[in-house]
Amino acid sequence: MSTTPSHTVAELAARFGLEVRGDGTRAIGGVATLATAGADQLGFLANPRYRAQLARSAAGAVVVRAGDADADGASARLVAADPYVAFAKIAALFVDRPAATPGIHPSSVVAASARIAASASIGPQCVIEDGAVIEDGVDIGPQCHVGRDCTVGAQSRLVARVTLVERVGLGRRVLVHPGAVLGADGFGLAFDADHWIKVPQLGGVRIGDDCEIGANTTIDRGALDDTVLEEDVRLDNQIQVAHNVTIGAHTAIAGCAAIAGSTRIGRYCLIGGAAGILGHLTIVDRVTITAMTLVTHSIREAGEYSSASPMQESRLWRRNAARLRHLDELARRVAAIDKGSSK
Amino acid sequence: MSTTPSHTVAELAARFGLEVRGDGTRAIGGVATLATAGADQLGFLANPRYRAQLARSAAGAVVVRAGDADADGASARLVAADPYVAFAKIAALFVDRPAATPGIHPSSVVAASARIAASASIGPQCVIEDGAVIEDGVDIGPQCHVGRDCTVGAQSRLVARVTLVERVGLGRRVLVHPGAVLGADGFGLAFDADHWIKVPQLGGVRIGDDCEIGANTTIDRGALDDTVLEEDVRLDNQIQVAHNVTIGAHTAIAGCAAIAGSTRIGRYCLIGGAAGILGHLTIVDRVTITAMTLVTHSIREAGEYSSASPMQESRLWRRNAARLRHLDELARRVAAIDKGSSK
Amino acid sequence: MSTTPSHTVAELAARFGLEVRGDGTRAIGGVATLATAGADQLGFLANPRYRAQLARSAAGAVVVRAGDADADGASARLVAADPYVAFAKIAALFVDRPAATPGIHPSSVVAASARIAASASIGPQCVIEDGAVIEDGVDIGPQCHVGRDCTVGAQSRLVARVTLVERVGLGRRVLVHPGAVLGADGFGLAFDADHWIKVPQLGGVRIGDDCEIGANTTIDRGALDDTVLEEDVRLDNQIQVAHNVTIGAHTAIAGCAAIAGSTRIGRYCLIGGAAGILGHLTIVDRVTITAMTLVTHSIREAGEYSSASPMQESRLWRRNAARLRHLDELARRVAAIDKGSSK
Repeated sequence: MSTTPSHTVAELAARFGLEVRGDGTRAIGGVATLATAGADQLGFLANPRYRAQLARSAAGAVVVRAGDADADGASARLVAADPYVAFAKIAALFVDRPAATPGIHPSSVVAASARIAASASIGPQCVIEDGAVIEDGVDIGPQCHVGRDCTVGAQSRLVARVTLVERVGLGRRVLVHPGAVLGADGFGLAFDADHWIKVPQLGGVRIGDDCEIGANTTIDRGALDDTVLEEDVRLDNQIQVAHNVTIGAHTAIAGCAAIAGSTRIGRYCLIGGAAGILGHLTIVDRVTITAMTLVTHSIREAGEYSSASPMQESRLWRRNAARLRHLDELARRVAAIDKGSSK
Repeated sequence: MSTTPSHTVAELAARFGLEVRGDGTRAIGGVATLATAGADQLGFLANPRYRAQLARSAAGAVVVRAGDADADGASARLVAADPYVAFAKIAALFVDRPAATPGIHPSSVVAASARIAASASIGPQCVIEDGAVIEDGVDIGPQCHVGRDCTVGAQSRLVARVTLVERVGLGRRVLVHPGAVLGADGFGLAFDADHWIKVPQLGGVRIGDDCEIGANTTIDRGALDDTVLEEDVRLDNQIQVAHNVTIGAHTAIAGCAAIAGSTRIGRYCLIGGAAGILGHLTIVDRVTITAMTLVTHSIREAGEYSSASPMQESRLWRRNAARLRHLDELARRVAAIDKGSSK
Repeated sequence: MSTTPSHTVAELAARFGLEVRGDGTRAIGGVATLATAGADQLGFLANPRYRAQLARSAAGAVVVRAGDADADGASARLVAADPYVAFAKIAALFVDRPAATPGIHPSSVVAASARIAASASIGPQCVIEDGAVIEDGVDIGPQCHVGRDCTVGAQSRLVARVTLVERVGLGRRVLVHPGAVLGADGFGLAFDADHWIKVPQLGGVRIGDDCEIGANTTIDRGALDDTVLEEDVRLDNQIQVAHNVTIGAHTAIAGCAAIAGSTRIGRYCLIGGAAGILGHLTIVDRVTITAMTLVTHSIREAGEYSSASPMQESRLWRRNAARLRHLDELARRVAAIDKGSSK
């Protein structure tokens, strides 16, 4: 049982460089939404559409922008340039996960040639294979598998049931969620007259510092060179990253997106959920792809790109979709009419 | 080796409140399709397009609607208002899975503070962590992980290799298939000048009674409040449910659908395969979403909604797709012509 | 530490039936891309758009088509009808995975009634249940689960953390990647007045010889009959194959595709990434489906089919998408104009 920490509003302000409005002596023991927060909890207002909740909130304090510092409501205020960022930092104080215990759980199976830092923690039922390196302060949860010649960088955490298959290198402070598989064979096939033959996948996977990999996400090994995520790449759940993909630093990708082989994605990109990106493309920095878009060609200019159709009642959509099957004819007919009418 | 049970047609009729036509003394030892059933097996006819198979079927008995009770064929008939429902109930008699043995397999690792009912069964190589509660009659298969402060309600079953990360509560009679990950961190990020910072995910997951969760499906913990599935929600494989989603009772979702954060789905909805639903939306009760539709706005009225384009030969589709890129111009041209021609 | 094998160019030519141009005595100790290969490595040129790299490449030898045999560059040449196929076969010589050790790791839990060939290798922390059969030369990596009445055919490999739930039969030389779940319950539900009831899934899964199943892919058991992959079917990662699907021999499916229940896919098909195929359809042999296409009806003729919309800048796409919602009206207006103008 962990004890919940408590901080006064003024202490939080000092620690995170924020300005206080109202009663700085209030004790804050947790965080919550404006709608549910109580007198000992901190809320935040980042999205203007929740502004109406500020006056009604029972929160002891609320992180707000300067413009909301003096708005109605009983809560003390912590004024931040970016309330969501400030809230995220404060909320981290209230994570009550117990610290991992250094050492190797006796139920785990560790190869003799693996090198494991004394400060690292290996949870129950893990398998660590030959040539694996586990650096300082690493926290490996239950049922993980660190395969041959894989490296887990300092302070990284494999939450539980993570599989690093082979030749996977994680940087420092990497966080990998359960069910993720890094370093499986890329999907390399050559068609030999009447059947497939497998193309050996001889590359690895390199993950930069501060990356986060979601649950059940898969990142394949490269065929010859490596598959690469630069630093601070953030992947949600169930994303597929094929062999030899490169993802630039600080790019974030939402759940269920899929990136085909050898594509290069730039830095500071935002890829929407269930988007698909074909192989061998190049996407420059600061590109946003909206949800369920299919990227069929390289993107040379920063900006936002889309392709998903608008939803309608099926009755209406079916009529429009039927016309879509003949859009080229329609356009030709319009061109003919246009020509005729302009005679 | 289990012995297969056997029931006469008349016994099945009595047990499930059905009417018999033909020979009620036949012994039924299993179920099969109309095409493959033999004399000791039961088939069913629910979809009218299989009606032609009824006359030819070698099944000992067939569950049918009243209208098919006297149709040609050698099989005895069991007449039901809904043959598929009746068949499902009868088929359950022929599931021959051996009962789980109460107790904890010696290869499992169980925390001292976990509370495990004497009638529960914990299979090999499970990890049960601090504060976990496993209620009466629970069946936990091999290689499952029940994390800190998780509860598995009475008579629930984790088939195998299920991960409940942290603060996950399952109701009674919940069935979770292999590879599912419940309670991983939601994808919460705040952009701080030039890099991402993680927003702590402090909520949990609550799953109602009688829910079913498919293989490799992921359901993230809430950021502050919980992610919630009400009772009798049915999720197929590889579905992604983001943090703070709520799914209403009796809603069924097909494989590979993805639901973004904080969206609320109503009761008795049907979501098609690989559909995507954006975040912070509200969908009322009894909404049907067809396969691969992207839901981009809230749905206020019951009904069926779609957005996926119709498939064509690529040669034709490419022409239409090229025109789609200029549809707005086309519409403007038509408007101009219309104006001109109506002068 | 494994020693890297080395082969002269002439030896490789003799072994794989290729023609040598240039210095056949060079020793080749590995494979690489044209851009990165060194003097002791072999590259290949299959895609004409990399032809410019041939002259500059420092590779000791390059596999090329006859037309590139005498092109500029210092590398020796191995001339092949299909350079990618030849390269794949040569590259397999340089896979340095240590051979699996026959026997059962002591941390694994094996049921008394399971039959395991003496030449098979069962890695650490596996669970092998009653009635399982593991044939000659099978290599089962760490943390796999072979459930009741499952068979793993000779020379097959489960890389790591693979789950075969129940009644799954794998042919010979099948390769299954981590996180794959074969044989989970199909998604069978019947709606009984106001709630769902489960339809028992009594079938199995049959996987033919030489199939490959990607990481986190799911293949459900059939409801009554089996779900079937014929020989040499190749599935990438995160694919969903629903109950009672049949996939014909030599078909390859890219990542994140989803196939709904009872659909039959022919032989030699190519299914693109994230494509969706509705249930109860039939697709003939030699059909190509492009990425993110939704297949809504059966396909009776070989050929290529598509439905994904073209990507555009969101600003342009939104305008076109808005018109798409009224395409039927537009078409009617054009028809009316056409009628009017042709009077």
